[in-house]
Amino acid sequence: MADLLLSSPQNPRIKTLLQLEQKSSERRRTGLFVVEGQRELRHCLAAGLEVESLYWCRELVSADFVPTPRSFEVSRGVYEKIAYRGSTEGVVAVVRERRLSLDDLPQKEHPLIVVLERVEKPGNLGAILRSADAAGADAVVVCDPLTDLYNPNLIRSSIGAIFTVPCVACTTDECIAYLRRHDIRILTAQLQDSHPYYHTDMTRGTAIVMGTESTGLTDTWRRAADAHICIPMLGQLDSLNVSVSTAILLFEAVRQRLGQE
Amino acid sequence: MADLLLSSPQNPRIKTLLQLEQKSSERRRTGLFVVEGQRELRHCLAAGLEVESLYWCRELVSADFVPTPRSFEVSRGVYEKIAYRGSTEGVVAVVRERRLSLDDLPQKEHPLIVVLERVEKPGNLGAILRSADAAGADAVVVCDPLTDLYNPNLIRSSIGAIFTVPCVACTTDECIAYLRRHDIRILTAQLQDSHPYYHTDMTRGTAIVMGTESTGLTDTWRRAADAHICIPMLGQLDSLNVSVSTAILLFEAVRQRLGQE
Repeated sequence: MADLLLSSPQNPRIKTLLQLEQKSSERRRTGLFVVEGQRELRHCLAAGLEVESLYWCRELVSADFVPTPRSFEVSRGVYEKIAYRGSTEGVVAVVRERRLSLDDLPQKEHPLIVVLERVEKPGNLGAILRSADAAGADAVVVCDPLTDLYNPNLIRSSIGAIFTVPCVACTTDECIAYLRRHDIRILTAQLQDSHPYYHTDMTRGTAIVMGTESTGLTDTWRRAADAHICIPMLGQLDSLNVSVSTAILLFEAVRQRLGQE
Repeated sequence: MADLLLSSPQNPRIKTLLQLEQKSSERRRTGLFVVEGQRELRHCLAAGLEVESLYWCRELVSADFVPTPRSFEVSRGVYEKIAYRGSTEGVVAVVRERRLSLDDLPQKEHPLIVVLERVEKPGNLGAILRSADAAGADAVVVCDPLTDLYNPNLIRSSIGAIFTVPCVACTTDECIAYLRRHDIRILTAQLQDSHPYYHTDMTRGTAIVMGTESTGLTDTWRRAADAHICIPMLGQLDSLNVSVSTAILLFEAVRQRLGQE
């Protein structure tokens, strides 16, 4: 444990940390990312990820906080500079990413998987991970992502689900090949040529595939589908948030799998 | 139509507008609120609300924009000051609120109503309105609200649903009396002493009652309930966003009502 108090935002460690928060290129280059909050950090450690360094503010941490090796105490001023959300939990850590591939996903008899094509908003991806955790989904696969998986907004809105739900980034072709190889049915959410989701069986191995809110799914996914499903739109706006739509479909799978018990 | 270009943020009209955006006390005092964006404004006008004044920026409005009476052109600088979101739609309007009471709600045979107790985050309320519109809900009732219904974040996250779904603010006692008088079943979402939501009938008049994410429902609502329902939590975090939970329950009602056809 270091006794040193870091009180200058010009400290090289603090500058590196800020770069990791702000730049996906820096996260990619180093394989490091930033986690804020004691709860999030607990889930991160429980998932077996390696903390490279930890920064904590004495005034803000809870009474039971115990600094770990490679911890650095920072001044309130520095903390406010490095904290990216309004929370007052007083802990920010630099963590080494663990990149999963499709072949790392645990094998299960009837997996429930969420596939997101070209998701662009980190906050939506985080919210989807949170719902995927609640629904007991086995994985979230992000195809051709436009955001990296360790964006601070994503981690925040996932409230830690980025560490509890296996999350893989890959290409669309790799994902389709994987689903076919494992006999997982591909259900694409789309408004055209589709049936209400509750008429589709989701009790076997199921992948729920969601497009972006702006452009929907590409033809590649539509053609690869075993069934096209839609959520009936009964209002005037014809619009659901993509994270809400995903949760409705995931919990239909839960209902079909558990509701008969 | 005014020919005048407003280019100073010190203009009294602009100052009034900014006050309405920033202060709920000012919205309450005047009965006015602010709507931004052409799409939102269309829904607002379609709902029959009265535009008190409109501010538009020539560089930003779409080609088909036609200034209405009581319109004021503003400079780009002023527009950037009054626009509260990143959009570039170029239109901000001051609108007179129309306060609905429970007795204003249209009578329907088997209404589907969302009740929110003490909802605190305007963004969550807006997201719930958006889902309520999609599910064809008949009303959203906010009991003892901690936010006003015309908070700019609420309007933005509702993407206009604040104008398409009847929304009432009242006390918990008024709401319970109304639901009983109209023979609407009260289903409270709570983790304790509850059954999975998909085992509960939602085909008759149904009110889905949601508490806050932090403290849940009060005992008053739990005691008033005809049934306690829960969403099974199958993950490690035991947590769903309240707007996501509400959408899952609303679309279960949709499934039960339409799925048999």
